[in-house]
Amino acid sequence: MRVGIIGVTGYTGNELLRLLFSHGGVEITYVTSYSYAGKTLDEIHPHYLEIIKPVLRSFSAEEAAEKTDLIFSALPHGESMEKVPLLRDAGIKVIDLSADFRLTDASLYPIWYKRDHCSPRYLEEAVYGLPEYNREKIKNASLVANPGCYPTSVLLGLLPLALRGKLVNWDTLVVDSKSGASGAGRVPSQNLHFPECSENFRAYRVAEHQHTPEIEQELGKLAGRKISLTFVPHLLPMIRGILSTIYVSLNNDNISLEEIVNIYSRFYRDEKFVRILPGPILPETRNVYASNYCDLSLKWDARNNRLIIISVLDNLVKGAAGQAVQNMNLMLGFKEEQGLETVPLRP
Amino acid sequence: MRVGIIGVTGYTGNELLRLLFSHGGVEITYVTSYSYAGKTLDEIHPHYLEIIKPVLRSFSAEEAAEKTDLIFSALPHGESMEKVPLLRDAGIKVIDLSADFRLTDASLYPIWYKRDHCSPRYLEEAVYGLPEYNREKIKNASLVANPGCYPTSVLLGLLPLALRGKLVNWDTLVVDSKSGASGAGRVPSQNLHFPECSENFRAYRVAEHQHTPEIEQELGKLAGRKISLTFVPHLLPMIRGILSTIYVSLNNDNISLEEIVNIYSRFYRDEKFVRILPGPILPETRNVYASNYCDLSLKWDARNNRLIIISVLDNLVKGAAGQAVQNMNLMLGFKEEQGLETVPLRP
Amino acid sequence: MRVGIIGVTGYTGNELLRLLFSHGGVEITYVTSYSYAGKTLDEIHPHYLEIIKPVLRSFSAEEAAEKTDLIFSALPHGESMEKVPLLRDAGIKVIDLSADFRLTDASLYPIWYKRDHCSPRYLEEAVYGLPEYNREKIKNASLVANPGCYPTSVLLGLLPLALRGKLVNWDTLVVDSKSGASGAGRVPSQNLHFPECSENFRAYRVAEHQHTPEIEQELGKLAGRKISLTFVPHLLPMIRGILSTIYVSLNNDNISLEEIVNIYSRFYRDEKFVRILPGPILPETRNVYASNYCDLSLKWDARNNRLIIISVLDNLVKGAAGQAVQNMNLMLGFKEEQGLETVPLRP
Amino acid sequence: MRVGIIGVTGYTGNELLRLLFSHGGVEITYVTSYSYAGKTLDEIHPHYLEIIKPVLRSFSAEEAAEKTDLIFSALPHGESMEKVPLLRDAGIKVIDLSADFRLTDASLYPIWYKRDHCSPRYLEEAVYGLPEYNREKIKNASLVANPGCYPTSVLLGLLPLALRGKLVNWDTLVVDSKSGASGAGRVPSQNLHFPECSENFRAYRVAEHQHTPEIEQELGKLAGRKISLTFVPHLLPMIRGILSTIYVSLNNDNISLEEIVNIYSRFYRDEKFVRILPGPILPETRNVYASNYCDLSLKWDARNNRLIIISVLDNLVKGAAGQAVQNMNLMLGFKEEQGLETVPLRP
Repeated sequence: MRVGIIGVTGYTGNELLRLLFSHGGVEITYVTSYSYAGKTLDEIHPHYLEIIKPVLRSFSAEEAAEKTDLIFSALPHGESMEKVPLLRDAGIKVIDLSADFRLTDASLYPIWYKRDHCSPRYLEEAVYGLPEYNREKIKNASLVANPGCYPTSVLLGLLPLALRGKLVNWDTLVVDSKSGASGAGRVPSQNLHFPECSENFRAYRVAEHQHTPEIEQELGKLAGRKISLTFVPHLLPMIRGILSTIYVSLNNDNISLEEIVNIYSRFYRDEKFVRILPGPILPETRNVYASNYCDLSLKWDARNNRLIIISVLDNLVKGAAGQAVQNMNLMLGFKEEQGLETVPLRP
Repeated sequence: MRVGIIGVTGYTGNELLRLLFSHGGVEITYVTSYSYAGKTLDEIHPHYLEIIKPVLRSFSAEEAAEKTDLIFSALPHGESMEKVPLLRDAGIKVIDLSADFRLTDASLYPIWYKRDHCSPRYLEEAVYGLPEYNREKIKNASLVANPGCYPTSVLLGLLPLALRGKLVNWDTLVVDSKSGASGAGRVPSQNLHFPECSENFRAYRVAEHQHTPEIEQELGKLAGRKISLTFVPHLLPMIRGILSTIYVSLNNDNISLEEIVNIYSRFYRDEKFVRILPGPILPETRNVYASNYCDLSLKWDARNNRLIIISVLDNLVKGAAGQAVQNMNLMLGFKEEQGLETVPLRP
Repeated sequence: MRVGIIGVTGYTGNELLRLLFSHGGVEITYVTSYSYAGKTLDEIHPHYLEIIKPVLRSFSAEEAAEKTDLIFSALPHGESMEKVPLLRDAGIKVIDLSADFRLTDASLYPIWYKRDHCSPRYLEEAVYGLPEYNREKIKNASLVANPGCYPTSVLLGLLPLALRGKLVNWDTLVVDSKSGASGAGRVPSQNLHFPECSENFRAYRVAEHQHTPEIEQELGKLAGRKISLTFVPHLLPMIRGILSTIYVSLNNDNISLEEIVNIYSRFYRDEKFVRILPGPILPETRNVYASNYCDLSLKWDARNNRLIIISVLDNLVKGAAGQAVQNMNLMLGFKEEQGLETVPLRP
Repeated sequence: MRVGIIGVTGYTGNELLRLLFSHGGVEITYVTSYSYAGKTLDEIHPHYLEIIKPVLRSFSAEEAAEKTDLIFSALPHGESMEKVPLLRDAGIKVIDLSADFRLTDASLYPIWYKRDHCSPRYLEEAVYGLPEYNREKIKNASLVANPGCYPTSVLLGLLPLALRGKLVNWDTLVVDSKSGASGAGRVPSQNLHFPECSENFRAYRVAEHQHTPEIEQELGKLAGRKISLTFVPHLLPMIRGILSTIYVSLNNDNISLEEIVNIYSRFYRDEKFVRILPGPILPETRNVYASNYCDLSLKWDARNNRLIIISVLDNLVKGAAGQAVQNMNLMLGFKEEQGLETVPLRP
């Protein structure tokens, strides 16, 4: 199969290329870059020297249609909603890694993304690409909205509970997330300038982050009710990794931690990329580094009748490019884990 | 005045020495080390070369009494409860930086510290050394229990609310804290080995951390009721700094964020070392680096009627040695901020 | 083919396992650990959870011989020289990642490693495992001494010159190397304690590092004369990566940088894992991260008639486990690059 | 005394302010910023909140002359040469932290800084501000050119040898320097973007760095002959600190390391801020962190008759702002160490 990447020089585009290079079943036949069109990839990213040397193209839906069977769009939010419709109209399957097709309610875009959606009719077509509960829909999808990094970490941490929605007192849901700096992308800024980001830690967009409605939408679908949460992201002085600490009370005081762990274990039993950690072991971002795994721990705070779920993943892999490859595998009929079965990089 | 430090070669002892060296009003006349007695300090810590060169002594309450007016004990938990009574019996004022005299209820020690308290009668004498609400008691104290790093960040973030205890729905209190690695001390371990701690993030002692009862005790005193909280600490891949994100619901839905900010601003108006950040600015650990400041922001999550308080401090300064110097200043009659008026180190 | 790893829980053993897991041509049938025998690997290293779960065995040459066709020894220096002879006597091919079989002159061990060599007769059998010039010998070897991380970076930087030994004024050779902390291994120590290693930089074993004679021996073989160099290693506050800056004067002032670059380019033309960087691009450790590449730049300081060669590699891959897999491929008849054709991890 | 800072919001301006705030003998009466004129400092740098709140002014030589007795110029190279003459013409003493007045030969500027010098007549007036050998000239200077960070580390490492110029084979001089990222300033760039700078190491401007002629000029003055060196800087993944490894051969093979150490010890005996480390202790950047110290070690590579000098300092303190304060103390008649006697920050 022939695949392409729109916006290959950013961090998610680059990570897609790294994973697809080792996939074994696809050929990368088309890559574009707005800023560097005409150059070869290794002129921009010398780590590709003597490995691959594609010429970076300007975006063209026609060329994409001619050269590929599936396109990954790794464009920024706002740009994807302009280009993806052209690709879809040209008949190409698309996996979009931006947020532009994740929210089914177009009226949420101006609130959270500060712009109207320019192609709302594609929101219906888009399938939310979390294979762990949307697998069958993804297989038949033409447009997959690849989940955000934070939402993936939170949703995988809450899926089994959301499906038993009445078990949970949703009004108590608080999510405290921490992300490595690569989540902010490749464009330099004061906040991510090494001397200001290293040896520093801070919260940002407190209870205002644009990933909030995406989490609420998907949890709500599963739980069959409106769900609202307090979500606070923080910036870690490291490159890769997200850890979400999820706090929630249950409606049923009689359920034991063991029963909850069983619910999770059963739900994720056949899931290759979600690991419920045994007993005393707690998630560390380094244990999923550069891999597609999401590790989960469940803890019960008996003194306060509160469940604490800790979830880690690599924001560029299971939080972006790895999940996109997993979705591609489903859409194109590959084995779901093809190209993703690697040992996490530690140390 | 003459002061001494018991256990000077650990991180808090070392930081005390750094601060006291620039204090201007005290002479350091006695320092001890269990492991390195007989050597000079610069043999162990070459950054003191040609600056100070005290001989490290073995602990002796008699020698301490003879040579000093006040002793800082920077011993580990468990050891301090053995040595401090000897110092007190010799008539010396003590500021203890361990946890050994912070909990007034001796029965909590076996639960949280896994050992009985060997000198419970000193628990009554000890004053909890948070100057921002215990200032007068500290001035007259002979034994000050210097607060823990996490508790200081949480208590300063909640003090004004705790004093209006009925405003708060305390059952909803969740504290998600993140600390730099120096908080774990100077002894090497697998978890703090550079290749395992760098570029990694994890939670630890989830809802089981020994600082929990200390926070509950002090909040409870102020609020006039029993308080229980969910407390989850995390380890940051950086050296210095704590950030606590505090989530709590209020009982009064009609109070505005502005009113809450006013309550805080009034409470901390004359406090030198607590800064309420204006409007959009959020705390960053780097803005208090190597200084005695604690920076606070208050945010209101209107969608979920939840207050979010973010608090940062340097765990070795306001979270340990700086606060100890502040307490010493109160006990010995110095200006409270003497030796602590420095610009945070950034970058 | 069936392979085994002696000492799998250290950093090089662990990296071997990561690479061999994705190799495609070998089965890992035997792994040992001195400290953790009897446990499963994922009990020690949770990043292997649900990926591989071998039981860690105690070392037994008989079991190794029965279960494997080739053994990687990732034991520390000094231990390998005791175990490898047992494996060789049992008829198994061995790739030894320690320094124990690298020096052909047994009398150098007491000088640089502070111990006599206990099995000097195997020094003759051992082939120095740098495929870029020893390829044919490695193919037929039964015992390969896998090069050190520093030596690999230096030798690849000097190979083409060493083969034209008269071109170089060897008396002027200075090598200034910098390594990430993983090179020091997995055992915690004060120097590698996160708060002391992060945000810090230092030299160590100045002109006394045990990798010095290994570099001199191999350069000497190639140049056909005794070579002595000044070698100073430094410790970087990062996990992976070595950069060596090599300074040397030439005997021929008329040779141009272009000619030297041509010599290098020709020599490495068919080498998969050595990249001569084009013109203005300089090596960065991140461009070879988690990969088997070694990147080289050549610069001419015309003001001082001095050649500057900069060499980078990942100390755990081309500097250890990756090179060992490359050697295994040669010894077992696989394609030399099998299992090593990955895109470096960046960011 | 009243002092001012031109360009206070950059890293050196900011560090000057931090040091001068604790100096005790000066009042900061004038600070300027090109980008943020009209705002207060704490709007740009919140770590100054409630500490100092000066209004940032646009540059005016008249206002500077009226309000201050001495000005620190922390402008970028190229801008300083335009503003400093205006200040000097207005009769104010100036310490310039840029490179614009360091080279006495104006013809070197186009070669190394790619621009002509616009006010060469001030080059004669300027005194090179390295107190360790220019102390008396600095006391009487009206314009001090504050040395660069790299040159300070190299010159302090070579001063005693340069004064015995014939002892050294200057043709063999190689300097391999490594600097933390704050040396590159506050403006974000791709190279200093956290995900590209963290966990990465690289050389830059190999044998082309603009600090080279400054080192050669000052060494040449002391040695009484033309000196040329190979200088290669590298970028460390940390914020503060420079370590220079200096390689040089001696002309006299009979001199012992002990004699050389004695030469250094005698030369620096009364120098407060240069420390010759005893025997086995090697310099670490962390041992001088946030302080004005420069630590030196001397090692002899007997196998190659080569001297290795290792020098560390904090690039923002002894490498910039601290040295400027030291110079100010000399120029204004303060005790040379006033405001600089602090314990290095470790950890």
